[in-house]
Amino acid sequence: MTTTEAAGAATSDAPSVSPTPVTTDHDRGVHGYHQQKDEHLKRLRRIEGQIRGLQRLVDEDVYCIDILTQVSASTKALQSFALQLLEEHLRHCVADAAVKGGEEIDAKVEEATKAIARLLRT
Amino acid sequence: MTTTEAAGAATSDAPSVSPTPVTTDHDRGVHGYHQQKDEHLKRLRRIEGQIRGLQRLVDEDVYCIDILTQVSASTKALQSFALQLLEEHLRHCVADAAVKGGEEIDAKVEEATKAIARLLRT
Amino acid sequence: MTTTEAAGAATSDAPSVSPTPVTTDHDRGVHGYHQQKDEHLKRLRRIEGQIRGLQRLVDEDVYCIDILTQVSASTKALQSFALQLLEEHLRHCVADAAVKGGEEIDAKVEEATKAIARLLRT
Amino acid sequence: MTTTEAAGAATSDAPSVSPTPVTTDHDRGVHGYHQQKDEHLKRLRRIEGQIRGLQRLVDEDVYCIDILTQVSASTKALQSFALQLLEEHLRHCVADAAVKGGEEIDAKVEEATKAIARLLRT
Repeated sequence: MTTTEAAGAATSDAPSVSPTPVTTDHDRGVHGYHQQKDEHLKRLRRIEGQIRGLQRLVDEDVYCIDILTQVSASTKALQSFALQLLEEHLRHCVADAAVKGGEEIDAKVEEATKAIARLLRT
Repeated sequence: MTTTEAAGAATSDAPSVSPTPVTTDHDRGVHGYHQQKDEHLKRLRRIEGQIRGLQRLVDEDVYCIDILTQVSASTKALQSFALQLLEEHLRHCVADAAVKGGEEIDAKVEEATKAIARLLRT
Repeated sequence: MTTTEAAGAATSDAPSVSPTPVTTDHDRGVHGYHQQKDEHLKRLRRIEGQIRGLQRLVDEDVYCIDILTQVSASTKALQSFALQLLEEHLRHCVADAAVKGGEEIDAKVEEATKAIARLLRT
Repeated sequence: MTTTEAAGAATSDAPSVSPTPVTTDHDRGVHGYHQQKDEHLKRLRRIEGQIRGLQRLVDEDVYCIDILTQVSASTKALQSFALQLLEEHLRHCVADAAVKGGEEIDAKVEEATKAIARLLRT
């Protein structure tokens, strides 16, 4: 994918040509969310538990509306996770593209906007 | 729960007019979604698998945007499940309340609308 | 449209055959939201004012984020209006179909669910 | 374009300590969405027309579900406008903050994420 290629290219080019290369975390293959990895995994495991809880509710014939309330809670948790991921993406990947200059920033912003649109449409 | 109590109340009010009280599936403790139970559990297990897939993506440092795409898919699957549950709820619980008459229908419709509002706000 | 036809059919049937015809507000051409018409129009005029306010903000080069906050407020107002309309629809049209019995209720519930799905996907 | 100019400036300044601060369009009071102003106003006028259309539908007692369909269309149009505004904001204001460096970028990204969260919650 573009990012990986670009990152790879940047790293191998770095020692040789470009006079003042900006080297960023992203070039080192570190995505924005990397530092919060443990927190993300914990969040996702909690959501997985919520989904298993939903199966229990259905299995025990719990009242429909109470199940719907739980579905809303799980959806909210997923959206929350998405927002945190997005924030880190903007802070690292998008900001990096801006610092490097060139056309990368337009592509990154368009890509991020499309991801936000997908989140909105669900 | 409220439904059962209310149903009981409706039955005791009935003596005036209708000689044969309407007994519905709901009175028999069968919620709307009961008949689709297996399908619901299958859907939820698939969503659980998606959430585990998300953990794998985070663990393997997959590109943020690709993870967000997967989050959107899981959220959509949850919304879809909620809509099916809601449809069955309207068809059974809400319709039953309407058939029985009385104030039950107002409470049921208000409750359903609040559940829809919660889904919309996530 | 189904409703109108059904209402027409019910009206023409009413004097003649059916032994105990249930005549509802809906048969009289009164949709659920009719009684709240003034309130609805007031709400919509307020939303129209919000949209005109947005044009002013754009015209005066107000900061993007402040405009987005206003867009969120307008979207929320529209969703709120939709929820009220939906609640009245469930209380009147859907409940009427349930009382009348027959296949109408299935069609009505399916139609309402599709409308809710459209609201969720925006 | 802003980003590229600013990026160019940043690169040449980089080696030194930058005694000459980077001046961007944003500093000159030009927000990201400025260049698309006419398009934005046209979009908003169209949405205003949709809201007036909704009033007509309510006034003419149109069937509830058909009104809900129109509400969904207006909400979608508003979300679409928001996404375009957001994209320009990310491309200009957020990218500018990244180029300038310092703590500004964190504040900008946090602010943008909160705006996205508000859009999601409506």
